[in-house]
Amino acid sequence: MSDDRSRARVLRHERVYSGKVLDLDVDEVEEPGGILGRREVVRQRGSVAALPVHEDGRVVLVRQYRYAVNEQVWELPAGRIDPGETPEQGTRRELEEEVGLRPRSLEPLLVFWTTPGFCDEVMHLFRATELESVPPRPEADESIEAATFTLAEAREMIRRGEVREGKTLVALLLELQRPGR
Amino acid sequence: MSDDRSRARVLRHERVYSGKVLDLDVDEVEEPGGILGRREVVRQRGSVAALPVHEDGRVVLVRQYRYAVNEQVWELPAGRIDPGETPEQGTRRELEEEVGLRPRSLEPLLVFWTTPGFCDEVMHLFRATELESVPPRPEADESIEAATFTLAEAREMIRRGEVREGKTLVALLLELQRPGR
Repeated sequence: MSDDRSRARVLRHERVYSGKVLDLDVDEVEEPGGILGRREVVRQRGSVAALPVHEDGRVVLVRQYRYAVNEQVWELPAGRIDPGETPEQGTRRELEEEVGLRPRSLEPLLVFWTTPGFCDEVMHLFRATELESVPPRPEADESIEAATFTLAEAREMIRRGEVREGKTLVALLLELQRPGR
Repeated sequence: MSDDRSRARVLRHERVYSGKVLDLDVDEVEEPGGILGRREVVRQRGSVAALPVHEDGRVVLVRQYRYAVNEQVWELPAGRIDPGETPEQGTRRELEEEVGLRPRSLEPLLVFWTTPGFCDEVMHLFRATELESVPPRPEADESIEAATFTLAEAREMIRRGEVREGKTLVALLLELQRPGR
């Protein structure tokens, strides 16, 4: 029995892959309650995403090819947090790189796990307003298209299955919940 | 240049890990637009989750330890789709196993990617109603606590950061959007 009964005890740890965007561990653990298991866990250093909202209420989404799902995906401007960055700094960097927007206001919305069953990714979600335009500077291995939608259009895109990405659904549904929408 | 310009051309494929809940590929690809990249992709066979809603509008969540994030997590009853199962069959199985509920109505809400930047997981989200109680039968390596909340309580749990898991946020925010809530 472990001393801290709310945490697992690691009986055996193996890093089976160490990569650029993720690592993979396979650990034998004793979880709270004495459950023994072999857990495959993707380790990722944390991500940021922001919903840019213009003064008239329109929102900015990006569309980019995602090899993992072999589709063009509508989603929030987003990315991994670079080493040494705060979530806010990472968000500001991604907004400038991907959509050429510099927010004067960046409101933290939520921090959540994208898929805690097998991955430790933490997603820091922001709402970006008072947007100033700057030249976008996409990374060499990115091809990103940005577009602006009314919230009613975004709601329709969800309904029609055109927006179907986790963090983007969370941010748009939160925006639809805001008082006055 | 690939013939189908909306899809990537795989230049080199390597499966670096093949496991129980996930596989990991490292592929060299030429993506649409001619972008060359090395992509680390977690392959997972698809998941289901359901928001059980009682006749009085109260919702059922489960709390379980998740080793990947080393925390107890409030989330929807959910799980991977077993081979040969439809998403609806998988959802019904998980609802019986985890919370001992058999819905007479199972409404598809959304299908979305949890984290398409590096993982192909597809999440099939349902709304379960007209709930009949049956004996729960947890799996050997699971320890799950179920609880029932009003939608107002669930909204407060989101605000306080007590509900902070992607699919669960999506389902609860959708439920808060439903006409009449």
